[in-house]
Amino acid sequence: MEGSKNMIYADNAATTRLDEDAFESMKPFLLEEYGNASEPYSFSYKVKKAIKSSREIIASCINASPEEIYFTSGGTEGDNWAIKGTIAPNDHRKVITSAFEHHAILNSCAYIEKMGYPVQYLYPNEAGFITVESLEKCIDKDTRLVSVMLVNNEIGTIQPVKELASIAHKNGALFHTDAVQALGHIEIDVKDLGIDLLSSSAHKYNGPKGIGFMYIRKGTKIFPYANGGEQEFGMRAGTENAASIVGMAVALEKNCKYLIQNQAKLKRLESTLLNMLDSFGIDYRRNGTAPQNPGNINLSFRGFEGEMLLHRLDLKGICVSTGSACDSKNTQISHVLKAINVPEEYALGTIRISLGKDNTDQDVIDIANAIKSILQDR
Amino acid sequence: MEGSKNMIYADNAATTRLDEDAFESMKPFLLEEYGNASEPYSFSYKVKKAIKSSREIIASCINASPEEIYFTSGGTEGDNWAIKGTIAPNDHRKVITSAFEHHAILNSCAYIEKMGYPVQYLYPNEAGFITVESLEKCIDKDTRLVSVMLVNNEIGTIQPVKELASIAHKNGALFHTDAVQALGHIEIDVKDLGIDLLSSSAHKYNGPKGIGFMYIRKGTKIFPYANGGEQEFGMRAGTENAASIVGMAVALEKNCKYLIQNQAKLKRLESTLLNMLDSFGIDYRRNGTAPQNPGNINLSFRGFEGEMLLHRLDLKGICVSTGSACDSKNTQISHVLKAINVPEEYALGTIRISLGKDNTDQDVIDIANAIKSILQDR
Repeated sequence: MEGSKNMIYADNAATTRLDEDAFESMKPFLLEEYGNASEPYSFSYKVKKAIKSSREIIASCINASPEEIYFTSGGTEGDNWAIKGTIAPNDHRKVITSAFEHHAILNSCAYIEKMGYPVQYLYPNEAGFITVESLEKCIDKDTRLVSVMLVNNEIGTIQPVKELASIAHKNGALFHTDAVQALGHIEIDVKDLGIDLLSSSAHKYNGPKGIGFMYIRKGTKIFPYANGGEQEFGMRAGTENAASIVGMAVALEKNCKYLIQNQAKLKRLESTLLNMLDSFGIDYRRNGTAPQNPGNINLSFRGFEGEMLLHRLDLKGICVSTGSACDSKNTQISHVLKAINVPEEYALGTIRISLGKDNTDQDVIDIANAIKSILQDR
Repeated sequence: MEGSKNMIYADNAATTRLDEDAFESMKPFLLEEYGNASEPYSFSYKVKKAIKSSREIIASCINASPEEIYFTSGGTEGDNWAIKGTIAPNDHRKVITSAFEHHAILNSCAYIEKMGYPVQYLYPNEAGFITVESLEKCIDKDTRLVSVMLVNNEIGTIQPVKELASIAHKNGALFHTDAVQALGHIEIDVKDLGIDLLSSSAHKYNGPKGIGFMYIRKGTKIFPYANGGEQEFGMRAGTENAASIVGMAVALEKNCKYLIQNQAKLKRLESTLLNMLDSFGIDYRRNGTAPQNPGNINLSFRGFEGEMLLHRLDLKGICVSTGSACDSKNTQISHVLKAINVPEEYALGTIRISLGKDNTDQDVIDIANAIKSILQDR
């Protein structure tokens, strides 16, 4: 079904289609306006101006100041930067994070643990949330950073980041959130949330791959991620990827502009899908509870295998993901489903359907019917 | 002169125009083939295949194996990775580098020095080379890494990397080269050079910005640069930027295919330019001596200011760079010109003209005449 017109793409939490307006905005900076933004001649003026304006657009989408926006190569870079860049060499106070973060956080934490910097893990409740109580139990004045994601990438649960950040600050710790799944999909106001650091990735909200940004609140102590030239206020060296920066800003601005409409549509599609599955009498559970990222539907079918479901749906031209950390050699229950205690007979049969703004009512009807036919064909 | 058809772009060492074939190769992966390469469904198959094939193309351009190629966000990332990623926590053996490296190396070295890991700097001779003798004098068994660039970014001198790498290895040290200015412009055979690590950036050879790769010789001990997903053999996490990877491979393959022709043309353009300046009786010196990257012409005009020359050329629609670390607040002699002892009355009046494959004979005639008119108009 490669690129087929009949394909139903329902893996928008993995990546999204580049928005046409974003692509059109990138083209001049891929083709004619190729000057290096660091050069002082007039040929680079439009490039410099476009980068400046993109920084302003992005800042305004999250209620930040432009000088708090630092362009990166994506969410993984931001997560690595937040965890590793906030270490002061002789500061061995602990980091607190959650057991169901993205691997960019978990593996960065494992790395710093090996280097001798302690990390403590919070477990979500069965509904899929890191509670205020669990953080309060664990945090003390010996904490330097708390990092909890804004939206979980597998089950879509929206974490109480504002409350968690407030507890972190009361204890003298910084607060970082991995907002990769959240940005462009739910409203984010960094001032209201009271966070210090936020990482994001453009390709999760219809921007290009290989670009993202970090929000770093003014005054936050963090080391530069890459040493070299003076780009990104001396914090992240490397020739600016102007085309992708511009495309990211256009995509984010558009997604934010239509956020309410998109959310309403995605909630409607979600209901249609779940109502159909219910009406078929299928034995499934939806993992995580509200509030969830609209369109993120993590479903476990008792007695089935997620990988089989994925491949059978693929044969029908439908792209979804397994809930599990899927590699071709190994079927195992994902760290997220384990963390929220999904019973094994369900957990093994998990798929994540993640709808995006391009999906239609017909798409979810087709998905529901395809699931029914696969389950009944067994 | 923003994007003007009459502009003469002669700052190819800063960045290059994206090759049309590279752009065309990127388009399908920006538009239709947007699947996440890590997903197992068939929609991602073409993406996975394109990334694999790009890795093979790039490997063959430098005589490496595909599994020795690791995609990065560019040269700065590669340089940071080489310097910081090769540190083992309790290994306090020194790093040897040169005093005229790119700031991505120099500032990464300054960073690790602050962390307590020693760095020693080699000075180039006045011709612009790090000699075998200077490394031999400095190296001992207490050296863990030697990093010397393949082509200097300001004066274009091609360093004796093969000989330097051999000395490093005799002393049990790794050898890294920053090949950002070299790749796609001079022939590179990593096996013949005998190096362990090579960093590069696509936009220096008519590929897109924001992408590059590291060559890591099989068996070389280095930590992952970014922790997270299993991309890049577990060494550099983050969703693959397929469009840019494909564009980079197409651009590199094309530049390597026409390398001899491009070099011959650039040498001819160089001669034309220098012969004209000579015939005008202008008091200048060219910094660095052969072997140099064809097209990289670093010129110092006695009694002039580089910034003034750059801006006067800009007014005539000609883009060049100053040899100096140019920022708007400060005119100073660059660390490279200082390292090779260019006399101050010349050094202050330095510009770098870096020609590329798109430049024409008429371009260099116009540049020479423009320089003459600026110097005489004073």
